[in-house]
Amino acid sequence: MTELADRPAGAERTTAAQATAGRTTPGTAPAPAAGPSAPGVDVAALGELLLGKWADIRRASRELAGQPELHKTEGLTHTEHRRRVFGQLKILVDNGAVHRAFPVSVGGADEHGGNVAGFQELVIADPSLQIKAGVQWGLFGSAVNHLGTEEHHAKWLPGIMSLDIPGCFAMTETGHGSDVASIATTATYDPATEEFVVHTPFRAAWKDYIGNAAVDGLAAVVFAQLITNGVNHGVHAFYMDLRNPETKEFLPGIGGEDDGVKGGLNGIDNGRLHFTHVRIPRTNLLNRYGNVDADGTYTSPIASPGRRFFTMLGTLVQGRVSLDGAAVTASKLALKTAIQYATERRQFNASSQTDEEVLLDYQRHQRRLFTRLATTYAAGFASEQLLQKFDDVFSGRADTDEDRQDLETLAAALKPLSTWHALDTLQECREACGGAGFLIENRFASLRADLDVYATFEGDNTVLLQLVAKRLLADYAKEFRTVNFGVLARYVVGQATDAAIHRTGLRGVAQFMADSGSVQKAAIAIKDEASQRALLTDRVQTMVAEVGSALKGANKLPQHQGADLFNQHQNELIEAAQAHAELLQWEAFTEALGQVTDPGTKKVLTWLRDLFGLSLIEANLSWYLMNGRLSMQRARTLGDYINRLLVKIRPHALDLVDAFGFGPEHLRANIATGAEKVRQDEAREYFRQQRASGDAPVDEKILLARKGHGTKTQGTKTHGTKTQVTATRG
Amino acid sequence: MTELADRPAGAERTTAAQATAGRTTPGTAPAPAAGPSAPGVDVAALGELLLGKWADIRRASRELAGQPELHKTEGLTHTEHRRRVFGQLKILVDNGAVHRAFPVSVGGADEHGGNVAGFQELVIADPSLQIKAGVQWGLFGSAVNHLGTEEHHAKWLPGIMSLDIPGCFAMTETGHGSDVASIATTATYDPATEEFVVHTPFRAAWKDYIGNAAVDGLAAVVFAQLITNGVNHGVHAFYMDLRNPETKEFLPGIGGEDDGVKGGLNGIDNGRLHFTHVRIPRTNLLNRYGNVDADGTYTSPIASPGRRFFTMLGTLVQGRVSLDGAAVTASKLALKTAIQYATERRQFNASSQTDEEVLLDYQRHQRRLFTRLATTYAAGFASEQLLQKFDDVFSGRADTDEDRQDLETLAAALKPLSTWHALDTLQECREACGGAGFLIENRFASLRADLDVYATFEGDNTVLLQLVAKRLLADYAKEFRTVNFGVLARYVVGQATDAAIHRTGLRGVAQFMADSGSVQKAAIAIKDEASQRALLTDRVQTMVAEVGSALKGANKLPQHQGADLFNQHQNELIEAAQAHAELLQWEAFTEALGQVTDPGTKKVLTWLRDLFGLSLIEANLSWYLMNGRLSMQRARTLGDYINRLLVKIRPHALDLVDAFGFGPEHLRANIATGAEKVRQDEAREYFRQQRASGDAPVDEKILLARKGHGTKTQGTKTHGTKTQVTATRG
Repeated sequence: MTELADRPAGAERTTAAQATAGRTTPGTAPAPAAGPSAPGVDVAALGELLLGKWADIRRASRELAGQPELHKTEGLTHTEHRRRVFGQLKILVDNGAVHRAFPVSVGGADEHGGNVAGFQELVIADPSLQIKAGVQWGLFGSAVNHLGTEEHHAKWLPGIMSLDIPGCFAMTETGHGSDVASIATTATYDPATEEFVVHTPFRAAWKDYIGNAAVDGLAAVVFAQLITNGVNHGVHAFYMDLRNPETKEFLPGIGGEDDGVKGGLNGIDNGRLHFTHVRIPRTNLLNRYGNVDADGTYTSPIASPGRRFFTMLGTLVQGRVSLDGAAVTASKLALKTAIQYATERRQFNASSQTDEEVLLDYQRHQRRLFTRLATTYAAGFASEQLLQKFDDVFSGRADTDEDRQDLETLAAALKPLSTWHALDTLQECREACGGAGFLIENRFASLRADLDVYATFEGDNTVLLQLVAKRLLADYAKEFRTVNFGVLARYVVGQATDAAIHRTGLRGVAQFMADSGSVQKAAIAIKDEASQRALLTDRVQTMVAEVGSALKGANKLPQHQGADLFNQHQNELIEAAQAHAELLQWEAFTEALGQVTDPGTKKVLTWLRDLFGLSLIEANLSWYLMNGRLSMQRARTLGDYINRLLVKIRPHALDLVDAFGFGPEHLRANIATGAEKVRQDEAREYFRQQRASGDAPVDEKILLARKGHGTKTQGTKTHGTKTQVTATRG
Repeated sequence: MTELADRPAGAERTTAAQATAGRTTPGTAPAPAAGPSAPGVDVAALGELLLGKWADIRRASRELAGQPELHKTEGLTHTEHRRRVFGQLKILVDNGAVHRAFPVSVGGADEHGGNVAGFQELVIADPSLQIKAGVQWGLFGSAVNHLGTEEHHAKWLPGIMSLDIPGCFAMTETGHGSDVASIATTATYDPATEEFVVHTPFRAAWKDYIGNAAVDGLAAVVFAQLITNGVNHGVHAFYMDLRNPETKEFLPGIGGEDDGVKGGLNGIDNGRLHFTHVRIPRTNLLNRYGNVDADGTYTSPIASPGRRFFTMLGTLVQGRVSLDGAAVTASKLALKTAIQYATERRQFNASSQTDEEVLLDYQRHQRRLFTRLATTYAAGFASEQLLQKFDDVFSGRADTDEDRQDLETLAAALKPLSTWHALDTLQECREACGGAGFLIENRFASLRADLDVYATFEGDNTVLLQLVAKRLLADYAKEFRTVNFGVLARYVVGQATDAAIHRTGLRGVAQFMADSGSVQKAAIAIKDEASQRALLTDRVQTMVAEVGSALKGANKLPQHQGADLFNQHQNELIEAAQAHAELLQWEAFTEALGQVTDPGTKKVLTWLRDLFGLSLIEANLSWYLMNGRLSMQRARTLGDYINRLLVKIRPHALDLVDAFGFGPEHLRANIATGAEKVRQDEAREYFRQQRASGDAPVDEKILLARKGHGTKTQGTKTHGTKTQVTATRG
């Protein structure tokens, strides 16, 4: 069995990387283990599907990310690493890799989705490079682009794009991370000199964790409370010079600190900044959404301060969309390496006297890796949908307030799941490769350290999920302030024709309800697509309805009582938001299945989608049982069914990770090179020859058995099985 | 509420560190928030309980670990870090910190439990220092001590103890980690010269991941298949010189490689070793359990090769015991810092117009940190029990085969849970502290990176849990090869008087069954101790019985079929082992409660134990529902009850982490210093004065409201609640 299940050397197989690079013809033979009539995966076509709408840009970005001069050098000090990454940014500029999103007027392409797609792939080279590029062009440059007006564009964007002006996005303060509205830096207008006075009133208001602040930043977009004529108009963005371009010293009134070594991303010089009555010209206000005239009069095209704030911060969504896709890319890298290694690595001889099992034939190993592979596919398809929605909004094709809110909500739902999933996957892959996984040469630990902060920056994951929960609740409560518990299903169906609901991704909920008219059918079966959808959807609806019901009237209570009531349900709210996000991933996977035409690929991907869906149901099985959605009998079949899916997927596992399309220049993991197979083959050949020669020393145990002593004298009996472990081998 | 729940400055409070250092009198006032009649924690007494049997040694070790010259310096290259740690080992020698376990004959104290207790605390200084010390004295020195005889002790232990002979424990090979019995290095006896010829037959047989191998190791204990007179007697240990002590170059026939940078523990020079027909004297065989006479005759005091192997590898249990406690110590460090910060850090003003909430008042934050606090207490008490059992065995006080097997099983059960828990806790604490958590100055990321490999070295966690599962199954199957499902309960009760069962930690199972006579009562309630025990115990029993039943007769099948059958249940086996280990932790926590006399402390600790027990039940709730152990109605009350426990524990959270007894020299985290409180107080005072002065700029929103425009013009309504997030603040 082992021999059959193991992959052939694969000379005849085509990887997605090869196929899409046009080096060989696409199409692959099915894996031998699956037998002649079993389905096979069309690796090249699947690879193309995974690359998505901006496949060409992704390919170009990957080609760049495969260049050695852009790779992370391990073991550098943070000072050396910072220097290397700064140099790499210039390579990105020289290769035109980072200008797509800027206006045509300054040499960009006004291409937003493609820009982010290319950015997402840079994580392959070095996450520090990716995030430093994100700081420079995705945050600093993007703020000038989206919050500034044409004069600002002409004045600063060329220098920002060329890296002549390395800059900071100075929003977060030591005292305020997620709660941007409460930042305490002030920009007070002085009509006498027509200047803003930027000031840091206390230590907690220092800007903190700011990329480019410790060393490289010559300028910054600083977020501060805009005060003019005694009125605080809320947070606005100001362009400021920080350092003398020659001496690199801070300009008068500006000070700062180095954040020092971090848990990862040490190629970026994060630091702190503070301002002591620093004067900047009135025209340095990035005034697209709010302007101060020379006499101090404030005007804005958006009357409501709340909506204005929301609009200005809307550009931050780009960061979340970017991280979401980057996290998926990192998960793919890890799974390709770990699954490749698991098809070569052998440990413990359970099923035969001479050959040890390859790791991927162990059930537990399959569970550990295939469930994460399934989630990675789901997160990848969802990420592509998010990116397309982002492009719709930022291109202006679909850019209503509603569209922007939907985009915000979708990004807030998906980014937490994909970034946490990347950390979980990197860790599980690292452990699944044992000591080899811990060596930096195999990259898991390095990527994990760098991606750690993806879970809390550009929106803390826990805070983002609360944003999603609020949206779910608002949708619920708007129509049904006095709703009874059971009415929610009809409510959602009623919204099915509402474009706003359609676009938020609540689509899946609505469609299923429209199709089936009832969630009760869900209890009939759990394996098919409709049942999975029904179960996942029902859970989101019911959780939202329950919390909504519990919170009814909270905003009529005195403030602290209302707050208490909300706090008592905070955990449920976050769980409801997560369930919603998981449903979105499942829907995205299912929609992608609809685009697959090759029957073999479709079959295997359907198993993988089922594994994803059923794993979600298994993880929340107690909910389904407690709420009468699944019977005890049916629930007990779930684990076995998942185990059977693992066995079905096993022969196709390598195809499914090959479809990610990475070459050795992307993986750069020693254990992904086939080196382990060479070692294992050498060892097995050594023992084969030794047995054939008759020179092998006789095992003492066999000798004793011949003498009739028997070998099973241990207290712990030795079973001839795969669960044998170190200290109990007889 | 916020003000009340927040901790006072605490001048009158006594930390365990102060109390145990005798600087102030023990005893603390109850936290004000809990009200006059609420229970309070006797922090000093609790701290003493947590320090356990070897409290004095732990205190001394912590004092040493608090010395700056032993602390990890962040940001060093791995080369610099290695050099620093090697120097630190000498400081340990000079302070007599690492010799307790060695024989009195060479200047040791034959003190095994105390030695490990002291070792466990060294993680506070630098995990690299800890593990490098572990390699030198816990593995290399320990192998000479336990596997060698008096001649070997006299010859090598003094140099090992003094660090004149830095050495390696060369067991693991590139091709074989957990499966030690299959290592391929050979030591073939040559009677002509009375030498062993040590040889590496192929690349996979290189020794790998070996501490001290890359740079410092002058000698090694090498594990190899002992072959004499054409018979392979299995794995034995050989003492070998590796390098010329003057030139540090490898001796002839020996080669190696540096493993390079790793995901953590970069103060240790892990590397690879290989041997080409290297000849060593016959007497270099560490021959306590197996000897080769000059003529090549092999003799052993242990006739069975399996038992002999088991006995020789038994010394490895010390490493697992050590890591178990070290992981608990690291979890404690993280929780003290994160909980301290969470009582000072404020974010979002939900319940009042002027003051933001402290993080620890958020329900989700409590869930994230308190559940892990509860598990840390449980793991700590279990770790102390394991250490005492280890000391019983290694002191010879209780050293039968059965004792050793029980110890192995207990270590194999607890080490996986505590090391995984440490990684989970370090990560959750890091995320709970946001960007500040990612800065290396706050240590979470550094400790997490270093502790990562604790999950796979000294026994891969997944493999160890299978060892536990095998033991559970063997106990089950020995008596009941043809048992019916329902008989297991009686079986376990039948074993209640059996000391062997008592000592394995199955004690809890047995006692409860003896006390109550039935598991059916468990369904009556879930909150009280007896119910928790019944539910947790029942699950272990039933899972073992189910798998045992499914596997019945597996070893009568042809080998590959039997292996297949086992593999189909591998996941269940591992889950059963984990459930067993969790039960052991719960029992240890419950037993520790029995030692608490102060009523306030007892009450608070009981809440914490309940939180641990009920969280376990919640995590496996689907099992209890599917198997009819809990009704739907009862299961639905669980979440609420856990939430109420969080509220009860909240006022005592700081006491519970203060009882860990760490001083600032141990924590060394910037955010554990109270700096955040200073910043928050300064900011609040600034705004208070501004409001009092009448100089505060008017908020545009308030101005608009006065003008009658209203502020709630956003699509997303602003609730006055704690779930407010960035982009939706009005």
